[in-house]
Amino acid sequence: MQGALINGSGSGADHQPSSELVNGNGTKTEELAFHSHSESDKANTLEPLVRVAKLTETNPSDIPPASKPGRQYAVTIQDILERRAKAGRLIAPTASYSDSDMFKGPQVGKPHSKSMEHHLSPESLSRHPCSLKQAARHLKTPGIISLGGGLPCAEYFPIESITLKVPQPPNFSEAATAESGANVRIGKYDVTDPAIQGTYDLSIALNYAQATGSAQLSRFVTEHTELVHNPPYADWRSCLTVGSTGALEQTLRMLCDGPGRGDCLLTEEYSFATALETAGPLGIKVVGVKMDDQGLLPEAMDELLTNWKPEERGGKRKPHVLYTVPSGQNPSGATQGVQRRKEVYEVARKHDVFIIEDEPYYYIQMPLGGTETDAEPKEETVEQFIDSLIPSLLSMDVDGRVLRMDSFSKVVVPGSRVGWVTASEAIIERYIRHAEVCNQGPSGISQVILYKLLDEQWGHEGYFKWLMNLRGEYTKRRDTMVAAVEKYLPKEVVSWSVPLSGMFYWLKVDHTQHPGIQAGKSILEVEEEIFNDCIGKGVLVARGSWFRAEQDTEPNELFFRATFAAATAENMTEAIKRFGDAVRDSFKL
Amino acid sequence: MQGALINGSGSGADHQPSSELVNGNGTKTEELAFHSHSESDKANTLEPLVRVAKLTETNPSDIPPASKPGRQYAVTIQDILERRAKAGRLIAPTASYSDSDMFKGPQVGKPHSKSMEHHLSPESLSRHPCSLKQAARHLKTPGIISLGGGLPCAEYFPIESITLKVPQPPNFSEAATAESGANVRIGKYDVTDPAIQGTYDLSIALNYAQATGSAQLSRFVTEHTELVHNPPYADWRSCLTVGSTGALEQTLRMLCDGPGRGDCLLTEEYSFATALETAGPLGIKVVGVKMDDQGLLPEAMDELLTNWKPEERGGKRKPHVLYTVPSGQNPSGATQGVQRRKEVYEVARKHDVFIIEDEPYYYIQMPLGGTETDAEPKEETVEQFIDSLIPSLLSMDVDGRVLRMDSFSKVVVPGSRVGWVTASEAIIERYIRHAEVCNQGPSGISQVILYKLLDEQWGHEGYFKWLMNLRGEYTKRRDTMVAAVEKYLPKEVVSWSVPLSGMFYWLKVDHTQHPGIQAGKSILEVEEEIFNDCIGKGVLVARGSWFRAEQDTEPNELFFRATFAAATAENMTEAIKRFGDAVRDSFKL
Repeated sequence: MQGALINGSGSGADHQPSSELVNGNGTKTEELAFHSHSESDKANTLEPLVRVAKLTETNPSDIPPASKPGRQYAVTIQDILERRAKAGRLIAPTASYSDSDMFKGPQVGKPHSKSMEHHLSPESLSRHPCSLKQAARHLKTPGIISLGGGLPCAEYFPIESITLKVPQPPNFSEAATAESGANVRIGKYDVTDPAIQGTYDLSIALNYAQATGSAQLSRFVTEHTELVHNPPYADWRSCLTVGSTGALEQTLRMLCDGPGRGDCLLTEEYSFATALETAGPLGIKVVGVKMDDQGLLPEAMDELLTNWKPEERGGKRKPHVLYTVPSGQNPSGATQGVQRRKEVYEVARKHDVFIIEDEPYYYIQMPLGGTETDAEPKEETVEQFIDSLIPSLLSMDVDGRVLRMDSFSKVVVPGSRVGWVTASEAIIERYIRHAEVCNQGPSGISQVILYKLLDEQWGHEGYFKWLMNLRGEYTKRRDTMVAAVEKYLPKEVVSWSVPLSGMFYWLKVDHTQHPGIQAGKSILEVEEEIFNDCIGKGVLVARGSWFRAEQDTEPNELFFRATFAAATAENMTEAIKRFGDAVRDSFKL
Repeated sequence: MQGALINGSGSGADHQPSSELVNGNGTKTEELAFHSHSESDKANTLEPLVRVAKLTETNPSDIPPASKPGRQYAVTIQDILERRAKAGRLIAPTASYSDSDMFKGPQVGKPHSKSMEHHLSPESLSRHPCSLKQAARHLKTPGIISLGGGLPCAEYFPIESITLKVPQPPNFSEAATAESGANVRIGKYDVTDPAIQGTYDLSIALNYAQATGSAQLSRFVTEHTELVHNPPYADWRSCLTVGSTGALEQTLRMLCDGPGRGDCLLTEEYSFATALETAGPLGIKVVGVKMDDQGLLPEAMDELLTNWKPEERGGKRKPHVLYTVPSGQNPSGATQGVQRRKEVYEVARKHDVFIIEDEPYYYIQMPLGGTETDAEPKEETVEQFIDSLIPSLLSMDVDGRVLRMDSFSKVVVPGSRVGWVTASEAIIERYIRHAEVCNQGPSGISQVILYKLLDEQWGHEGYFKWLMNLRGEYTKRRDTMVAAVEKYLPKEVVSWSVPLSGMFYWLKVDHTQHPGIQAGKSILEVEEEIFNDCIGKGVLVARGSWFRAEQDTEPNELFFRATFAAATAENMTEAIKRFGDAVRDSFKL
């Protein structure tokens, strides 16, 4: 067996040696130099929170106004590069403990987050740290031999190396990759090989790891989050997830207790079907908030919460959690502008609502074009690109009341099943306690491949260039659909807003003009009729009713969702034509 | 964009074209030829079960005796090879639906499983199939264009190929792999490339998939399960998981309702710490069953259940779920022999208990040696190896009351976060409904790498040879520890059984002889003293009390757990010596 990971430092499925930062000449630098908090602060996060689950009412007069978005603390890629150079090589052996705080810059002048403990469910509050993982602190003892953790020896991993062929920025196309792509090799013992001095290798990635994910990929997402969102409170943390699907279920179980506390979940009145199907079996009642073409309406949310009466709501208590998709909302395609986001955040503060911000489409923010040619994104720098992005709710979150879910699914690959969440340290600590028993974190194979591609091969700069390129590709697709709906849909009964983010076109059909409705049919019957006729004509679209937050009420509007993500330009145009024909036939136009 | 997966067949994150089997000349064979059930049977599995959650008491006189283990229906690797040749190339495009039933042989003469619906929790019973996924049946319509599913286009996946270097059976060592390992390439469009005619490629693996996992890897684990366990009822299914950690949490939520129904969980009196930490926050009270050196004692379980009185148990109802690790139990290292397993199963039938069988160490069944030389496994064929394995509870399960969890973590790599469960169709259907919203199945990157290694490169035969080789390696390690404990531990106070499976040595220390106990100290105090002295002397072992099923009672025995999986032979021996010194010092021997 090769490698230096045998003895203590390379131990236990249930052990966590700490990550360290080693500078260029191999000596350890002061760990605290890269921490924004003292060790005593950090120790607190290992203690379980007190086991009390109740909601408090906040007095609105106590709340200071939200500060400006986090860019007042802007960090540049250059800052990150300098920070890394100063820190030296990251040493994070098998199953080592890391904390995204290790990878943040100084958080000077930022306030501490407010306690959100009263939002937590009894289930979440009752979680304890794992005793075996706690024991791992002893692995720092010099010369110790571990017979503690039952994790397999890397010698028995039947993969010597993995080699990826990937594009080199800015030549991202498949053709360019075939021609000039880079071959990136991941060996089993790159970290302990003096000739390579790698940061992450197969002996580490193929073994057990912490539920937070590896230090190596955590560093990348933490820095990326700081570059783009830079939350305006000091004690924020990121943590890798098994993708936003899993992250949402974990977050709902952390914040809501349907059967015991009668918790509800606020969301857009039309929402991601899987999110609704996640909440339902947990006994969490979903309550829809009215929307316009910028998505969720803050005044509607305020009114709903101000006038909430449990006795009119089957005994359910006033909602204290909002699930929202601010960019390219699924299914409506709506994107909240910056002012809208500020208003949503202020309503959440007023009513002490915790926000789950789900933004898989955040980087697919498409400039308004009109023709494919106009839509070519203008030449811009990475900094200009970052500045052009609508600020996230996380970037405005002075309280620490937002848990943001990020995903690689829509912008790199869905099959990695890797994403990350960002929230306050106290919230992330509870999230990790659950992850330890419900999935043990994402696939190490996925992590090492993403790390090699995004961090070592592309770096932050290259990754942003990839995102800029991808946004251009989706803009072209969106504009193909813009042209098709303009040309083929009967505007007398179908209306839409051109989506500014995401992958979806939300087509409103004016049911009041439908002869069937006038003859007494229900909206659902007409929706089904059109849907079936679409199938007959050779196009599959999604029925709007599948996305209704409150499935137990009658719909009063008629929608269909169409994606421009998947089909070719030619097929997309043909499909919209078929949909238009189905609507015309149904309306007898 | 290349490939034929654009149009309908290559659609939607939330769509599921069916997998198909195509024979050598490219024409489709009858799907039903590879199904053991009719289509009407299958349709039933899409319907949610009735929403009733209550437990029934079974009348023991109604229960026929368990039949012989499933090997009466033995299937050979040759059978599998012939079945595959007859079926032709597996065609399973992006996100296609598959069912492990497609990959099973004829289940002639086997009974149907019994209904276990009364074991299900209200949460599990309330799950509905996803409406978007249901819509995917329309993708079979010829010529249909999908604007339905919002899944990204493979053109935007920035990985052209992944190449693995892996051992070729039977040359499994790292040195042999460096010298003669095979390079296995996975391209983006191998499936649609006529020159390659691949079965699984990156365009599929990197995209969204069904929560059951890919058809490709599902086929492998289904066949593997049939070769080894061959459950004695017809309607068994396998389903990929994100590893057994996640599978256990899902299964507990499916079967138990702590707060609402007062459900308890039976397990060995010392059990896997993470399993205990999974059950606790769900409000599930864990109840320990006495053990001996073959693990769980059936008569103790019978007595406990027969005499269960809710009023003596804080109102908790009689337990209806058992979690057991029959081979190389963690922490005790105990392995249930075949007779023991039959008795455990019969007690479960008598009291209508559902069994969660967790066997990550199943293939590490080590012959009794004594010295390293004796322990070399004898030359044997793959068939002899399979026949030498102790039958699993699944292989005896005539009722369909076992959910078995298998894992690649201990025998291939833990970092893949891939495992699988096997149970009746009705149970697996509920499991999948949860997986769809809590993780969407395992990483596609992990799946395609495991598939290429295990299925295409090694095949079933090669994988069994790998397992045989691995068992030999662990046997040597176990025997190193046998020699060390014999030489260095004070037998007057420390006793043990040599483990026949797994990775753990369970060392019983006779606390009654301890001077501290005699002077009034508690067992936990003495345990802590010895543990701390071990750290001081340079060895980390696990404290037995961490594994106690009933943490709210006082321990009456003193144990330590040591693993032989991780350290080198030299370090292991030294570590045991240090542990022996710590015990001697503590007992003042």
